[in-house]
Amino acid sequence: MSVAAQFEAANESYAASFTKGDLPLPPGRYLPIAKVAVVACMDARLDPAKVLGLEEGDAHVIRNAGGRTIEALRSIVISQQLLGTREIAIVHHTDCGMLTFSDQDLRSKVRRELAEDVDHFAFLPFSDLKESVKDDVQILKKSPLVLDVPITGYIYDVKTGKIDRVE
Amino acid sequence: MSVAAQFEAANESYAASFTKGDLPLPPGRYLPIAKVAVVACMDARLDPAKVLGLEEGDAHVIRNAGGRTIEALRSIVISQQLLGTREIAIVHHTDCGMLTFSDQDLRSKVRRELAEDVDHFAFLPFSDLKESVKDDVQILKKSPLVLDVPITGYIYDVKTGKIDRVE
Repeated sequence: MSVAAQFEAANESYAASFTKGDLPLPPGRYLPIAKVAVVACMDARLDPAKVLGLEEGDAHVIRNAGGRTIEALRSIVISQQLLGTREIAIVHHTDCGMLTFSDQDLRSKVRRELAEDVDHFAFLPFSDLKESVKDDVQILKKSPLVLDVPITGYIYDVKTGKIDRVE
Repeated sequence: MSVAAQFEAANESYAASFTKGDLPLPPGRYLPIAKVAVVACMDARLDPAKVLGLEEGDAHVIRNAGGRTIEALRSIVISQQLLGTREIAIVHHTDCGMLTFSDQDLRSKVRRELAEDVDHFAFLPFSDLKESVKDDVQILKKSPLVLDVPITGYIYDVKTGKIDRVE
């Protein structure tokens, strides 16, 4: 059975008991406090919905390698300007793959494996997890494209399931 | 209660019954077929894990406004080259916010609201949902940075919970 076939089979049971067909487009759960956007790492062990208690319709969830906010900027502008989100939570995590390589490592690997020059690529790895969260909060706080809204930065511990607030 | 406090409270109950502290870093679920990466929209109504039947540890999940693969390229190179994923699923969805504006609309809005020039920003909206999935599959298929792996493109229907395979 291909992976796609497994996705399709899993989706049949999701759809069979689906009851959330009337949700509005903008995230609604945390009103009247604020509509929320989450930026998190793509890591397989981190399910931002489960970790933060999100149901369908609750919050935008933006994910990339490392949960880097500089790459989330396009999505955040759309989230804030068109869909009205007014709070952001950032979730990085322990044992992150981004702690295991340097730009130079990956550029060399891509050149070796794919015969492609990606020296112009910033892969955005980091060597200090806590600092990466602080940096990513600051990138958003300092960006003139991001509204002055509450931004919280967390480290998720893949061993315990707990989030630890960094700032 | 702030939203952050609600996240922290929800996380306490997640962590209290957490049993997945021994998962390896690379996504494992679909082996021996392939390790998998998913690219999906950030939309609040779409929970890729629930829609595709993913548990913690199963697959990388990359999300951004629209689920656009061109912006996922950095993450996909990391996912394939460093963590060995060898299949990709793309999930866009009905009633997507990306169908409701043009680059020019949002550039004008940002200039008006934030007094910032973002004419250099491509916000990657689309006017044809099915075409957006096909385009995003092709972007990956044609990229010399992406391995020749199975790529499936779906449209998720926010009214029914069903995914429809586009290609």
